[in-house]
Amino acid sequence: MMPESVLKAAQSEITDYRSSGMSVMEMSHRSKLFADIFAETKVKLKKALNVPDSHEILFLQGGATLQFAAIPLNLMGECGSASYAVTGNFSNLAAKEAEKYGKVSIACNSADRDHSYIPAQSELKIGSDAEYFYYCANNTIYGTEWHYVPDTKDIPLVCDMSSDILSKPVNVSDFGLIYAGAQKNMAPAGLTVVIIDKSLAGNELSVCPSVMSYDTLIKKDSMLNTPPCWCIYMLGLMLDWLESMGGVAGMESIKSARAAKLYDFLDNSKLFIPHAERGSRSDMNVTFRTGNDALDADFVRGASKHGLLNIKGHRLTGGMRASLYNAMPMEGVEALVGYMKQFEVEHNV
Amino acid sequence: MMPESVLKAAQSEITDYRSSGMSVMEMSHRSKLFADIFAETKVKLKKALNVPDSHEILFLQGGATLQFAAIPLNLMGECGSASYAVTGNFSNLAAKEAEKYGKVSIACNSADRDHSYIPAQSELKIGSDAEYFYYCANNTIYGTEWHYVPDTKDIPLVCDMSSDILSKPVNVSDFGLIYAGAQKNMAPAGLTVVIIDKSLAGNELSVCPSVMSYDTLIKKDSMLNTPPCWCIYMLGLMLDWLESMGGVAGMESIKSARAAKLYDFLDNSKLFIPHAERGSRSDMNVTFRTGNDALDADFVRGASKHGLLNIKGHRLTGGMRASLYNAMPMEGVEALVGYMKQFEVEHNV
Repeated sequence: MMPESVLKAAQSEITDYRSSGMSVMEMSHRSKLFADIFAETKVKLKKALNVPDSHEILFLQGGATLQFAAIPLNLMGECGSASYAVTGNFSNLAAKEAEKYGKVSIACNSADRDHSYIPAQSELKIGSDAEYFYYCANNTIYGTEWHYVPDTKDIPLVCDMSSDILSKPVNVSDFGLIYAGAQKNMAPAGLTVVIIDKSLAGNELSVCPSVMSYDTLIKKDSMLNTPPCWCIYMLGLMLDWLESMGGVAGMESIKSARAAKLYDFLDNSKLFIPHAERGSRSDMNVTFRTGNDALDADFVRGASKHGLLNIKGHRLTGGMRASLYNAMPMEGVEALVGYMKQFEVEHNV
Repeated sequence: MMPESVLKAAQSEITDYRSSGMSVMEMSHRSKLFADIFAETKVKLKKALNVPDSHEILFLQGGATLQFAAIPLNLMGECGSASYAVTGNFSNLAAKEAEKYGKVSIACNSADRDHSYIPAQSELKIGSDAEYFYYCANNTIYGTEWHYVPDTKDIPLVCDMSSDILSKPVNVSDFGLIYAGAQKNMAPAGLTVVIIDKSLAGNELSVCPSVMSYDTLIKKDSMLNTPPCWCIYMLGLMLDWLESMGGVAGMESIKSARAAKLYDFLDNSKLFIPHAERGSRSDMNVTFRTGNDALDADFVRGASKHGLLNIKGHRLTGGMRASLYNAMPMEGVEALVGYMKQFEVEHNV
């Protein structure tokens, strides 16, 4: 979901960017016009997340799935090892991909309770020889979110923030590498943002494809080859909107209120059951069910008639999922709660 | 460059795609709406290039640079070898990347005459043990183009068509794999199209990242992860326009006339010197110079004042380059020739 104002801004200059006679979609990535868009967007993101000079921002392609490979290929070292927290589908896939390139130890696995919780710091088993510790900050499918930053001593933290980046302040210095597929909270699908501590680059395996070498990408300022220009431009527009909303601090207060409204309703409902355990609940993806698959299906069908789209849960979990990314207004949640109340009444609850 | 009509069509529905209440940039890639766009675009491309059922079309990310690695990782086999034709910068980079994964033999190298020509069939030295033969159909930097399809007997042909795809009919059955970064003739930067003979997939090296496995990508119909939805949508609009122009056959007659106009002028000019040798000249990128760097710089400066953008040659070659991709109208070439004539007069030629 994107704010109407952002879409309107893109619409107004899609055929002719600032009287250049060109669409951003037509620009050479080496042109002065695009170089300015690229540099300005990077400055805006650096400001929005308060990225320190020790870290480099990369604008890449390939999504999280590409990073699943790039991270071990760059950070594991020859015959190295890494520690993974498995708290959902994507961290599990990341761990499996890393096994191709070195030794993977599982610091925790929440599969024992259907990924309905985030393990506590005391439950993390992190091998002291790990080259990095990997976790996924927010699990879209199960609706859980890490509400603390793991303490790993000197082991670099690597975090997939695809689904909660820009939703709250983050101390970037705590992380060796942060990455995010842009399509949840940042920009249209097709852009991946990596924020990397530059001191970690330059140690890639010999089989690492050039397009995945952080060292090369840092040296080329993300321009080893043509970047996804339109998505980078759209990210710039989204960051302007973010700033107008009070930046990540503004987003944090909005998202907390938005999620609280839905969880409060769920906790008091006699029909709907929230999936995630208290203390591990995601502010971005709220997962719930009735406990009756046919009733869930009824609910999803009715929701789309009420203009509530994409409410069906992921195929791995079933049930329902409300995704409350940055651009979702409180009215969206109110409409959903209204429909849930109506559904309860219709089903004599 | 994109046709005005394509940009206008995108503009008209950028905030609300066909009364869905959603922008294509907001759609889930798993939604029915986007699934239809994806499937329709694939059908349009299959029709435009007459792709046989033996071949699969993939819509990917990462550009040619990612394919430089993906091709050997998938097609070379353990301890395998491949044969590369080096006729410019990009085929040279592709060959170097392949050396990470197996034995590379160079079938030809046109560096001896500054990549101003394409070697003849009789000059190609293709080892009989090669798993594939790789070439780049059109060399954007040097302005040369293969005007024949190499005969490699049973060795699969792999071709980078980034800069001349959709400019002429191609017999896809001749090729094991065709790929193209979309940003020249197809769609905005951020989409890579791969057309692969399905029988070649499934033999990737153990270190091949999942995101590069053609076998996996074929099985997942390009949806291993979120695809670049907006670029795929734009490709669909471009293919509608292509069809309205008579398809690839229509494009072929237009591009031949367009390039001939410029080469005819160059061959008769006493000031400007074409770079590429006759018989090897590209219809997509026409490279030329005056032989005097200061004069070249004057020409480039003046060109932008005449609305002729991006005429500066690549930093590897200097001089000038006119890129005549599909969306370039004949008027663009006429304006360039007009300016060149004026420049000659001003310099007393």
